[in-house]
Amino acid sequence: MSELEGAMITIIRVFHKYSGHKCKLKKAELKDLINNEMTHFIMWDDNTLDELFADLDQNGDLEIDFQEFIALIAMVTSACHDLFIPNHHHS
Amino acid sequence: MSELEGAMITIIRVFHKYSGHKCKLKKAELKDLINNEMTHFIMWDDNTLDELFADLDQNGDLEIDFQEFIALIAMVTSACHDLFIPNHHHS
Repeated sequence: MSELEGAMITIIRVFHKYSGHKCKLKKAELKDLINNEMTHFIMWDDNTLDELFADLDQNGDLEIDFQEFIALIAMVTSACHDLFIPNHHHS
Repeated sequence: MSELEGAMITIIRVFHKYSGHKCKLKKAELKDLINNEMTHFIMWDDNTLDELFADLDQNGDLEIDFQEFIALIAMVTSACHDLFIPNHHHS
């Protein structure tokens, strides 16, 4: 398996570490995940979490499924990309 | 840095390995990336590549920027998730 494929598996594994068998993250579980696994990439307080959770929970069931979680990862990775690669060409 | 943060950095690094300083993937570069880094996760032929490239290239500039690339990663990771976690609850 390539490093890129390993990275994708890691994302799946970390999601499941916090979601358990139900495959959904409640708000407290998302909070733990961000506090433990994304401290370098997301700076936030409890208000931000409420807004973030509402944004991610597209279907409004008060839980974050994997589809909704991967949208967060894409958003954060994109933000990191723009930060780490300052001289890239904006289209 | 957590394993999850490392995974996000890996995605950025692999993109840049193929895009170079221009920060965009031409079709041939996307083909190399998929052929070298995603062989276990994407099965495809040249026709599929043409369709995939057109789908990803949302702004129609014939190049894939990081924003468009991360959408591919999200799509493939989601598909893997559904495959590896067969008994998860569909909403």
